[in-house]
Amino acid sequence: MEIKVMKRVLDRNRDMAARVRELLESKNVRMINMISSPGAGKTSLLEKICEHLGGEIRIAVIEGDVATDRDARRLQKYGVPIVLINTDGGCHLDSNSIDIALREFDLDDLDAVFVENVGNLVCPSHFDLGETFKLALVSTTEGDDKPVKYPMLFREARAVVLNKTDLISHTDFNYKSFLADLEHINPGIPLFEISCRKGHGLNKLLEWIKLSIKS
Amino acid sequence: MEIKVMKRVLDRNRDMAARVRELLESKNVRMINMISSPGAGKTSLLEKICEHLGGEIRIAVIEGDVATDRDARRLQKYGVPIVLINTDGGCHLDSNSIDIALREFDLDDLDAVFVENVGNLVCPSHFDLGETFKLALVSTTEGDDKPVKYPMLFREARAVVLNKTDLISHTDFNYKSFLADLEHINPGIPLFEISCRKGHGLNKLLEWIKLSIKS
Repeated sequence: MEIKVMKRVLDRNRDMAARVRELLESKNVRMINMISSPGAGKTSLLEKICEHLGGEIRIAVIEGDVATDRDARRLQKYGVPIVLINTDGGCHLDSNSIDIALREFDLDDLDAVFVENVGNLVCPSHFDLGETFKLALVSTTEGDDKPVKYPMLFREARAVVLNKTDLISHTDFNYKSFLADLEHINPGIPLFEISCRKGHGLNKLLEWIKLSIKS
Repeated sequence: MEIKVMKRVLDRNRDMAARVRELLESKNVRMINMISSPGAGKTSLLEKICEHLGGEIRIAVIEGDVATDRDARRLQKYGVPIVLINTDGGCHLDSNSIDIALREFDLDDLDAVFVENVGNLVCPSHFDLGETFKLALVSTTEGDDKPVKYPMLFREARAVVLNKTDLISHTDFNYKSFLADLEHINPGIPLFEISCRKGHGLNKLLEWIKLSIKS
């Protein structure tokens, strides 16, 4: 019984995602769906994106959060349009919420919409939002086994960001094993190693994001 | 429509959870439902529990994982009975799976069943498994804002474990803000600060777990 309904929910989500994708393409706007565990650094990366790319790219942000407006408030100072979707306990964003959120922006005046999904490696991977691509974030302090334990996200993402590389020497993170698992799950997927806090590796990642948006 | 079905799913889950709880109480077995983000340290803590309490308490483990048997294999060397539930993409365990898993154990020969839920701060908090209590794990590297951003777990848990305290000086973790949020969400909830990797704070936590099981 639940399975049938789940299929219907997913079908409906996919239909709306297709409509969102079509709308964004017609406006030449890219949408990046950022997915990670809680606390891996999505908001911190968004801060860097707004700070460093805000001058060249017209950015808007959709913030997905179970509760509170803390992340949205962290981004306010960058002067980009922000819509906050509070899921009130819900574990992921869906294309219907995105469709409604997008109406708050003037899409003719935008190049890219960054979506910060709910902090969760599982559910957000199942729901197409109509995004141009998914960006997977994972941090060294979560351990090297995340790709193999949560493969769907790493299969679906266009690139992987490994954050908190400044902490790697304080953890048991096995870099070789992480790379091998990732290569097995999604051969050739671009990997960007960064420390958002220290600024390491950001230039290369930001350059790639810029190119992905302008292409 | 989805809401109605979700309610029915939750009702059915709750009914089965009540039956599981009754069974465990009749056998005088405690069940601890461990919930955290991916990589916060549930398996590492379980290793310490098996190692240090295995001699005094008859332990079994139910491992919930989206994919792979890695966590289950890490625990094999402790010689405790383990059942692995692969959710195949599912984002949480439910009471029905627990009911089936429990049949694999001889409950007359057990004092405690530790359940390692799927790594996810959101969905597992919504599903009662029939546990004696929930244990919330969070790590310093995830940031201090987890209680306020994912309040349900911290409201439901009987205690909170803050792991990776050895890394706190390398992060922007605001201890005062973390404590204040936790106190606001669940006043008086016991908090155990540990570093599983370095062994800090473990004695106190293990003592508390032992008492919770024996009481």
